[in-house]
Amino acid sequence: MQARRQRLGPSLSVSYETPLHIVAGSRQYLYAADGRRYLDCVNNVAHVGHSNPYVVRAGAEQMALLNTNTRYLHDKLIHYADRLTALLPDPLNVVFLVNSGSEANELALRLARAHTGRKDVIVVDSAYHGNTSTMVDLSPYKFDGPGGRGCPDWVHKVLMPDVFRGPHRAVDAGEKYAQSVADAARKHDGPAAFFCESALSCGGQIIMPAGYLPAAFAAVRAAGGVCVADEVQTGFGRAGEHFWMFESQNVVPDIVTLGKPIGNGHPLGAVITTREIADSFANGMEYFNTFGGNPVSCAVGLAVLDVIRDEELQQNAAETGEYLKNELTQLQAEYRLIGDVRGLGLFLGIEFVRQRDSLEPAAIEASQIVELMKERGVLLSTDGPFHNVIKIKPPMVFSRSDANFLISNLNDVLENF
Amino acid sequence: MQARRQRLGPSLSVSYETPLHIVAGSRQYLYAADGRRYLDCVNNVAHVGHSNPYVVRAGAEQMALLNTNTRYLHDKLIHYADRLTALLPDPLNVVFLVNSGSEANELALRLARAHTGRKDVIVVDSAYHGNTSTMVDLSPYKFDGPGGRGCPDWVHKVLMPDVFRGPHRAVDAGEKYAQSVADAARKHDGPAAFFCESALSCGGQIIMPAGYLPAAFAAVRAAGGVCVADEVQTGFGRAGEHFWMFESQNVVPDIVTLGKPIGNGHPLGAVITTREIADSFANGMEYFNTFGGNPVSCAVGLAVLDVIRDEELQQNAAETGEYLKNELTQLQAEYRLIGDVRGLGLFLGIEFVRQRDSLEPAAIEASQIVELMKERGVLLSTDGPFHNVIKIKPPMVFSRSDANFLISNLNDVLENF
Repeated sequence: MQARRQRLGPSLSVSYETPLHIVAGSRQYLYAADGRRYLDCVNNVAHVGHSNPYVVRAGAEQMALLNTNTRYLHDKLIHYADRLTALLPDPLNVVFLVNSGSEANELALRLARAHTGRKDVIVVDSAYHGNTSTMVDLSPYKFDGPGGRGCPDWVHKVLMPDVFRGPHRAVDAGEKYAQSVADAARKHDGPAAFFCESALSCGGQIIMPAGYLPAAFAAVRAAGGVCVADEVQTGFGRAGEHFWMFESQNVVPDIVTLGKPIGNGHPLGAVITTREIADSFANGMEYFNTFGGNPVSCAVGLAVLDVIRDEELQQNAAETGEYLKNELTQLQAEYRLIGDVRGLGLFLGIEFVRQRDSLEPAAIEASQIVELMKERGVLLSTDGPFHNVIKIKPPMVFSRSDANFLISNLNDVLENF
Repeated sequence: MQARRQRLGPSLSVSYETPLHIVAGSRQYLYAADGRRYLDCVNNVAHVGHSNPYVVRAGAEQMALLNTNTRYLHDKLIHYADRLTALLPDPLNVVFLVNSGSEANELALRLARAHTGRKDVIVVDSAYHGNTSTMVDLSPYKFDGPGGRGCPDWVHKVLMPDVFRGPHRAVDAGEKYAQSVADAARKHDGPAAFFCESALSCGGQIIMPAGYLPAAFAAVRAAGGVCVADEVQTGFGRAGEHFWMFESQNVVPDIVTLGKPIGNGHPLGAVITTREIADSFANGMEYFNTFGGNPVSCAVGLAVLDVIRDEELQQNAAETGEYLKNELTQLQAEYRLIGDVRGLGLFLGIEFVRQRDSLEPAAIEASQIVELMKERGVLLSTDGPFHNVIKIKPPMVFSRSDANFLISNLNDVLENF
């Protein structure tokens, strides 16, 4: 910690009151320097499991052979682009490879602006789209938070489609929240884009109500904007019932951005869009990304897709996720502190409240629970605008017995709370 | 090529009239699918040599052990931050790790703006600082080029300190070009930052005249701005006489950005700044980078530093670079098409002109020479605002015999031109 304070910027936080010194990882487990094992319930980057040997071998073999840029032809680049587009609905057929989710969302913005000739963007409250200056401008999670400078004039913030805490909670909530998008789309000269995480992550693990994205996308498109699905946190089978979270809303975006899980920790991101938008972007200015799409990144990305398919991880997310959500719902019946249990597949949230009527956020309690669970060998963290939501988004190899371990410990912690 | 056209965006170009299908790399050589070997004179990313086995092993071993984020403690993160800062002059003591040069320059801008509370930036004409929307705004190479939308109102463009083609060519050129920076620094409320590549890369492999950066930095600092040295293309010993190109100008920047060679192709970038600036940035808004500073990236970065030191690659850049520059200067005496030979270490440029009086750029000729050299197994490319500069920035293991091979072939090509 002293060395960190000396050498690293103070704007980088460390998890937990007593930080963990992690030295190894395997599947859904992390191992600390003191030999202790932790069940990782929160790392959606190590998607197919920490240090997955198949992915490691693919990366290592390609590193030893060649790692250069996309201005030369390379089979793996084509192969990977084929595999990615095969997983996405038409007309999402054109791939750009980058190095992170931030770079993916940056490129999505450039694509949307080039295609529409417009500047403005509609974003959902509490959203986070990246750490570059423009992505901070697009992220209410950042610009409305500590040190933030508020909403820029070219950004239009809409309500979170939150049926637990928001103003609309009935069966027509999806359409009512989409009205907020339609209102924003009529502002100024119309939007270049609507950026929307396919489930709200920093917003507090929120699954959108049915009908939200269809109505929101229709309004944005009617106003001449394009619809960007940010799948950085939610893609690659985590939703369980679908490979992409946006599919649970029965929509097809114009641009999809990918990051975190795509390379199982290797710095990789992708943007997939339509031929029409890609062609609009080709206005004479080249888009080149030094590391983007290099053979090692493609080899790693391909290996991740292989493991998801071969180990049937999407199916596991559906089954284990449903099991875990049911168990959490049973805890909710026992403990009044649990205001809501929600999620899809292995993208789950537990919202803690002091009173179920007032919904007063139980942020300190949520944070204490995270610390107590860590002491019991279970890694979790909090999120949401009130920091009172515990998020569960483990590596996709998370098993039913891991779910039982999590539930049993959470029960013990809540019992003694 | 057909598959590329189908799956990738048309804004990504391919090198050479008949593209190369590269399947393997080793040291300074690339190998095509037809078995042909090419001498790589242009890839400054594969800094310690393509597929360097020491770097590959370091990356592969760490991948197999652990690859997670910087919210846990990790020895390699501290070790790497120590090694990087030890290579930089005081007070450049605080490290941020990111995934690319674009992300590094993005963060540098956020640091500069947070520290100064200002927005405007001074940039050098023809500079390139990255592919995000804001970095395109900072890059005259992009915003003045095809598809560009011109200089934004918050960006102030200054003259390239080009003693071959620019207005100032005498012994006091450095100070005269710096006057253009001083003039820009007095505009509006003063600059947040002066972004400057330590040698101009897309600008045409230009080494700045003596006295330029000292006077420019003094003017920017007097106006309350911070000085950002973009070492993405030029760092890690390439300058030969110095580890960083900015050292050849006898200055200490406030922020240094690193990319391309730092991970020998692994997606990695870094920002190194002062404690004072890092503290200003810590205004309550966290800076977190999902992949930045992960143990694999740190292991790779450490291995690259080891190889540079152990194989004495900076020394090789000095010696081989000087030898090659002398040989190129001899070619210049023979061929009138060569208007200028310039550079430092293994960062060299050959500027082609139709007439030495008018300096009419010989862009078509330069491009033809690149194609003819490729037919002879030597990879080069053109750059500069008139596309008439052939750049030479090979992997740092480039040898004297490689230099002879390059010179001998270039001589043959020019003889028959």
